[in-house]
Amino acid sequence: MDMAEIGPGVAGGSNRQALSDDDRDGRDLFIRWAEAAGCTIEFDEIGNLFARRPGRDPDAAPVLVGSHLDTQPTGGRFDGVYGVLGGLEVIETLNDLGLETRTPIDVAVWTNEEGSRFQPSMMGSAVWGGKLDLAEARSHVDFDGITVGDELDRLGWAGSRPAAPSPLTGSFELHIEQGPILENDGTEIGIVTAVQGFRWYTVELFGSPVHAGPTPMELRQDPARALSAIMGDVYAIAAEHAPYGRATFAQFRSEPISPNTVPERIAFSLDMRHPDGAALDAMDKAMRDSVARHTETHEVTSNITIDTNSPPVQFDENCVAAVEDSVGALGFSHQRMVSGAGHDACYVALHAPTSMIFVPCDEGVSHNEAENISPDQAERGASVLLNAVIALAK
Amino acid sequence: MDMAEIGPGVAGGSNRQALSDDDRDGRDLFIRWAEAAGCTIEFDEIGNLFARRPGRDPDAAPVLVGSHLDTQPTGGRFDGVYGVLGGLEVIETLNDLGLETRTPIDVAVWTNEEGSRFQPSMMGSAVWGGKLDLAEARSHVDFDGITVGDELDRLGWAGSRPAAPSPLTGSFELHIEQGPILENDGTEIGIVTAVQGFRWYTVELFGSPVHAGPTPMELRQDPARALSAIMGDVYAIAAEHAPYGRATFAQFRSEPISPNTVPERIAFSLDMRHPDGAALDAMDKAMRDSVARHTETHEVTSNITIDTNSPPVQFDENCVAAVEDSVGALGFSHQRMVSGAGHDACYVALHAPTSMIFVPCDEGVSHNEAENISPDQAERGASVLLNAVIALAK
Repeated sequence: MDMAEIGPGVAGGSNRQALSDDDRDGRDLFIRWAEAAGCTIEFDEIGNLFARRPGRDPDAAPVLVGSHLDTQPTGGRFDGVYGVLGGLEVIETLNDLGLETRTPIDVAVWTNEEGSRFQPSMMGSAVWGGKLDLAEARSHVDFDGITVGDELDRLGWAGSRPAAPSPLTGSFELHIEQGPILENDGTEIGIVTAVQGFRWYTVELFGSPVHAGPTPMELRQDPARALSAIMGDVYAIAAEHAPYGRATFAQFRSEPISPNTVPERIAFSLDMRHPDGAALDAMDKAMRDSVARHTETHEVTSNITIDTNSPPVQFDENCVAAVEDSVGALGFSHQRMVSGAGHDACYVALHAPTSMIFVPCDEGVSHNEAENISPDQAERGASVLLNAVIALAK
Repeated sequence: MDMAEIGPGVAGGSNRQALSDDDRDGRDLFIRWAEAAGCTIEFDEIGNLFARRPGRDPDAAPVLVGSHLDTQPTGGRFDGVYGVLGGLEVIETLNDLGLETRTPIDVAVWTNEEGSRFQPSMMGSAVWGGKLDLAEARSHVDFDGITVGDELDRLGWAGSRPAAPSPLTGSFELHIEQGPILENDGTEIGIVTAVQGFRWYTVELFGSPVHAGPTPMELRQDPARALSAIMGDVYAIAAEHAPYGRATFAQFRSEPISPNTVPERIAFSLDMRHPDGAALDAMDKAMRDSVARHTETHEVTSNITIDTNSPPVQFDENCVAAVEDSVGALGFSHQRMVSGAGHDACYVALHAPTSMIFVPCDEGVSHNEAENISPDQAERGASVLLNAVIALAK
C-alpha cells in the first residue's frame, strides 16, 4: 500500500493522474524497488518505462509483463498498479528462488493509460503499438493547456529508446476485472481470451429554443424529444446484441441553462461495446439510423463524432493456454472471459503473442476509490502470472 | 433599441440577467427616461422599481402597468422590455396630449422575472404578492454562490418601501405572446383571460458509477436508463392532456464527466403546464408514478424538488372588458386567449383587478435572440394599453 499513499485520493483510493508530480513519485518508488531487484531501467520516447531482469540468452526476445501506474482522478489502488507490482513480484520471486530464465523479463509501466487528464486513454501503448503518432500524442493538452510533451520533458521521461515494438516472446497483463462477473460466479481467476471493441461518440442534438409555455407541443423542434426516443432505441439495440452488447450514455449537458426554454442543444457521450467487430458495426449503423429517424420526426438536427474507436482484440491462443495451464496446475477455479474494458495489452497484442489474467474485485467496483481486492485474490493472480511467465521464459 | 444594446447578446438579442451590472445599466436608462417624463422613482425591499406619474386625486389608488427588464441569457429584445417601455409610452403620450388622469399611473419594473440566474422566476412580483418570503428570496444563490440579497445590497436596490401590495384601481401587462397562435391565426391583439398553471421541477436520478466496459447491462444501476423511460412517459402524459398539456425537459447535467463510467447522478429540469389546476395535479401525479416505477426497475434513486409552483390564474372580467373595448374602438382584429407563460401579472392578479394584452411575435419565437415584433405590432399593442389605462384611470 506504499504505492497507494502516493497521490492519495479523498476516499481511500488514489489520485495519481498521468504525468503529474504524483505519477513521478509513484514511478520513482517503482524504480527504487525494481533496481533493488536487480533490474535495469529504460524509458522510450513516450515515457513508457521498462524494468528488465536479464535472461541467460542475451539474444532471446523478452517476455513482457506490466500495466500502468497512473490512476483516475478518483481512482482505486489496484487498477493498473496491480499488474505492474504483480510483474515486479514475479521478478522478486524468481530472485528469491534463484531461478534464471532463458529470456529477459521486462516489466512495462505504460504512460497515461487512463486518459482522464490527457486524451486518449492507453496513450503510451498506442504510440508504442504504432496506432498513435508520437508528435500528435505529445501535442495533446490537459484542461490547463499543458501538453504531454511539456510534461515528458519536465519529468525527463522522453527517453531515447524508440516508442515502437521490438520482438517479444510473449506478453501477459495481470489486472483486476473491473466488473462483477467473476465475483458473481464465485470464480477465482478469469482467463481473458478477447477484449470488447468499443466506440466513444459525442452526439449533439440541435433544436430551436422557444418559450416552454406558449409553444404547443406539436410546433416545437425539441431535441429532448429526439433524445428520449434515441435512448430507448439504443438500449433496445444493446439488448438485441446481448449479452455482450453494451451502451452507456453519460456526460449530459444542454443549453441554454433555463428551465422554461426548449433546449437549443443537448450533448451527451455514448459508449457502445461488443467483442465482435461486425456486431459493433451493426450497432453503430442502427444507432445512426435511430438518430436520423428521430431527428427528422422532431425537426431537429444532429452531429455525431467518434472520439475513440477501439476495435475488438483476440488474444493469442498459446498465451491463453499458458495461463490456463498455470491456473490448472495451481488448482484455482477459473473461466474464460471477454474483457469489457480496453487495456494496454490490446496494443501489445498487435505485435506479440499476448493474453490477460483477471482477478475478481469487490462488487465489480472500479474507477472508484472504493475499488478493492483481497490479499488472497492478489496472491492467486500473481501466482498464475508467475507460472505463465516461467512457461514462456523458461 | 437603446435598451437592447445594454447587455447585448451574441446574436442580436440581449443577455441582461437579473441583478447583474447589465440589469443595473438597463434600469438606469429606464430611470433617466422616466424622470425625464416627470415620474418619481421608488424601490421596494425586493428591488421592484415603480415610476409614478401623479394623478389629480392624490388619494386615488393607482393604475399599474409594467413588466420586467431582465432577460434570459440568450434572450430577445421584447420579452418584458416591451411591457415596461409600453407603460412609459403611455405616460409620455399622456404628457404629449396634456392629459391628466384621476389616478396616478405606476410603471412597475419587477425584479428577476426570468428566473434563469436566480430561482424562482417572477421573484419580485411573488414577494410583492405575498407568495414568496422576502428573506427566503434574498437567500437564493446563483451558480457562483452569490445571493439575491448580496446583489440587491450591492446595487442599492433594496428599497425602504415594503414589498407588499398597496391598493390598485387596476393593472395591465402588455407583452409579446411568446407563442405562435396569434401569428398563425392572423390576429393583431390577444386579450388574455387566464394564464396556464405551471410547475418547475428539478429531478435528480442517482445510480452507481461503475466501469462502462466490464459491467453487464443487467447488473447496472444506471440512472440514464430510468431517464429514458421517464421522458417517454412524461411526453405521453402531456399528450393525454392535449392541447394544453405541455412538458419541457432542459438543464441536463451528469457526473462524473467520464464517457466510460455509468453516471452517478443525472439531473434535469422539467416544466409542466396546464390551464386547469386539476389536470396539472393529474400530470404531477402521473409523472411521480413514472419516476417511482422506473427508478425501482433500474434500482436507482431519485429526488424531485418543486422549484416553482404557479397555479392557473383567471383574470378580472372588468379588466378583460376594458381591453376588449379598447381593441374594439381601435378596430384591430383580436381574440380571447390563455397565456402559456407565467407573468408578473399573475401575482398582481391576486390582489388587484388585472388582465394582459398580447401582440404576436415573429414565428412565435421567444427566449431566443431572434425574438422580434414589427413596429406596427408594437404600436397597436401600446395603443390598446393606452386606451385601457385611460378607461380605468380616467
